[in-house]
Amino acid sequence: MRLAEVDTPALILDLDAFETNLKRLADAVPGRVRVRAHAKTHKCPDIGRRQVAAGAVGVCCQKVSEAEAMVEGGIEDVLVSNEIVGAAKLERLAALARRARLGVCVDNAENVRALDAAMQRAGARIDTYVELDLGARRCGVAPGEPALALARAVAAAPGLRFAGLQAYHGRAQHMRSMEERQSVIVRASEFVLQTKNLLKKANLPCPIVTGAGSGTFMFEVERGAWDEIQPGSYIFMDADYARNEWAPPLPRFEHALFVLATVMSRPDAALAVVDAGLKASSIDSGMPTVWQRPGLAYTRASDEHGCIEIGSPAAAPALGEKLLLVPGHCDPTVNLYDWYVCVRGGVVEALWPITARGALS
Amino acid sequence: MRLAEVDTPALILDLDAFETNLKRLADAVPGRVRVRAHAKTHKCPDIGRRQVAAGAVGVCCQKVSEAEAMVEGGIEDVLVSNEIVGAAKLERLAALARRARLGVCVDNAENVRALDAAMQRAGARIDTYVELDLGARRCGVAPGEPALALARAVAAAPGLRFAGLQAYHGRAQHMRSMEERQSVIVRASEFVLQTKNLLKKANLPCPIVTGAGSGTFMFEVERGAWDEIQPGSYIFMDADYARNEWAPPLPRFEHALFVLATVMSRPDAALAVVDAGLKASSIDSGMPTVWQRPGLAYTRASDEHGCIEIGSPAAAPALGEKLLLVPGHCDPTVNLYDWYVCVRGGVVEALWPITARGALS
Repeated sequence: MRLAEVDTPALILDLDAFETNLKRLADAVPGRVRVRAHAKTHKCPDIGRRQVAAGAVGVCCQKVSEAEAMVEGGIEDVLVSNEIVGAAKLERLAALARRARLGVCVDNAENVRALDAAMQRAGARIDTYVELDLGARRCGVAPGEPALALARAVAAAPGLRFAGLQAYHGRAQHMRSMEERQSVIVRASEFVLQTKNLLKKANLPCPIVTGAGSGTFMFEVERGAWDEIQPGSYIFMDADYARNEWAPPLPRFEHALFVLATVMSRPDAALAVVDAGLKASSIDSGMPTVWQRPGLAYTRASDEHGCIEIGSPAAAPALGEKLLLVPGHCDPTVNLYDWYVCVRGGVVEALWPITARGALS
Repeated sequence: MRLAEVDTPALILDLDAFETNLKRLADAVPGRVRVRAHAKTHKCPDIGRRQVAAGAVGVCCQKVSEAEAMVEGGIEDVLVSNEIVGAAKLERLAALARRARLGVCVDNAENVRALDAAMQRAGARIDTYVELDLGARRCGVAPGEPALALARAVAAAPGLRFAGLQAYHGRAQHMRSMEERQSVIVRASEFVLQTKNLLKKANLPCPIVTGAGSGTFMFEVERGAWDEIQPGSYIFMDADYARNEWAPPLPRFEHALFVLATVMSRPDAALAVVDAGLKASSIDSGMPTVWQRPGLAYTRASDEHGCIEIGSPAAAPALGEKLLLVPGHCDPTVNLYDWYVCVRGGVVEALWPITARGALS
């Protein structure tokens, strides 16, 4: 089937661009730093296995249910880069830790005790990372003494292996200028180094510092304080990331993820309405852009409609014409679909299931 | 199972509030106006059947795939309140029109020809409504002569039954004051009446004018120009609708839809992080609110995290505590889940599948 024959809306993965992105990341990151690709972005073991084949040590997930899908799909080393709270989830995490190399993050002593108890009950052990709050004010403990205290609690827990530090600055990823992002990561690296020094003085070896995302990872690499990076969006390169300034040391990534949409109404000369609204492309980080169609601007989304302003008569799409949209934000857009329609040179080559779509728990 | 035992995030339907909302709508709408509830909101035949039992003539959908799910789920009268463009979708629509009473909207003569051809090929006929643009500038033809011309084309097409006018003003629904909404609907009613008069003069009977949403439907009822209303969100009442001014003639609706979330981190005295971010509750129309917990404000959402600011120490939730969130926008939030966890008096009574979740085409 050709791309033009695919019914809409559909989530399209351009395999050439995707493979280019895999290679550019692998080429950019020096051998001393491990890549642990973030599977929250794609939720698809077919993609996770290709990331491992391209050199990743494994993947990260944000949810136990995502980790279950990845282990079931053949990924043997999974870090849940998040805190897991509640008896039901801890029990599932412990069961999974018996089947694969598994990691998790903590930022609270009470949670360390519950995690340890769940692992001991299951006869499992889990790599446990102390998450630092690097200034984004979400999860994490303060660097320095609070992190050291929690690391001691982890190291003393028979069901846990103290594996190091989770050090991710989410808000830095979408700061627009290279300079802003670099300066936030430089400051973050000081928190990391300070905490590593404290751990060393306390005779607590810190095997791995893990963190970083697609918008900053080369800054973390350059600072030398990280052993592992967690980029996710680099494989797809969404419209919001494209609004960032991109320059060396970050490699360029290609748009590989699209929503194919059909023009379903042409109410006037300046407006085309497509069948892909906010249930087809998440608008939390801005509207999608129209791919390789200068003069067309997607300006409004309702649940099932997208309004595209037509800048000049020459740019006007016909009723029934199909357009490729670059989603504003890849992660929540992927979470709306059951499969990727994988295309190469305009021809459908495969369907990859989004196994962990809706895996929220 | 009790509500407190349900793992999170989960989509919760409070059955008492839902049934109250069904009844309040039925009580408010006079018998001369038909209710055709919008199933794009709930995507669930279990709910659609209950709406029919409460007096609705059937449901509306926005997509052929939603209509397929509704017909399959036992709803015998379905209006696709949207334009359907493209050979593959028209073929499915025609097949469905042989199985149930089906309607569709048109705003383009070329689409009327394609729709007619598809119906004739399938040996089917379909109720066809000419959609008016009432000023929201999305789909629809201009009221008056353009609408009359398209109605003539429909009436002349052997595969189509001219069923009337689709007259829905989407943007009016969320205007905050009663006065603003009423004044937009008064203006819209003039367009409808003008077009009906033209149709009458042209000897084209206009059986039904259909339209209206949860934020305005009593204004349409009062104007007398509508025969059928299409409210969807009234069954759930989301946080964005609750920001509207509500007063008679609109009945009050209760919040019936919630996202149950767990506090997964308490990084400082003023912050709680829950496990429900923008993949668990759509933020296109604003953040969720925290149900019956004064002093807690959900202020930031990332993919898998929600940040809740704690206004006073007395309001602080504990680590592991579960909170009910009222989603900002019900429709795209429902589309993230596979089932409703239906609760009455704090006890789980049923699971209703969201059959048309992800039904985009």
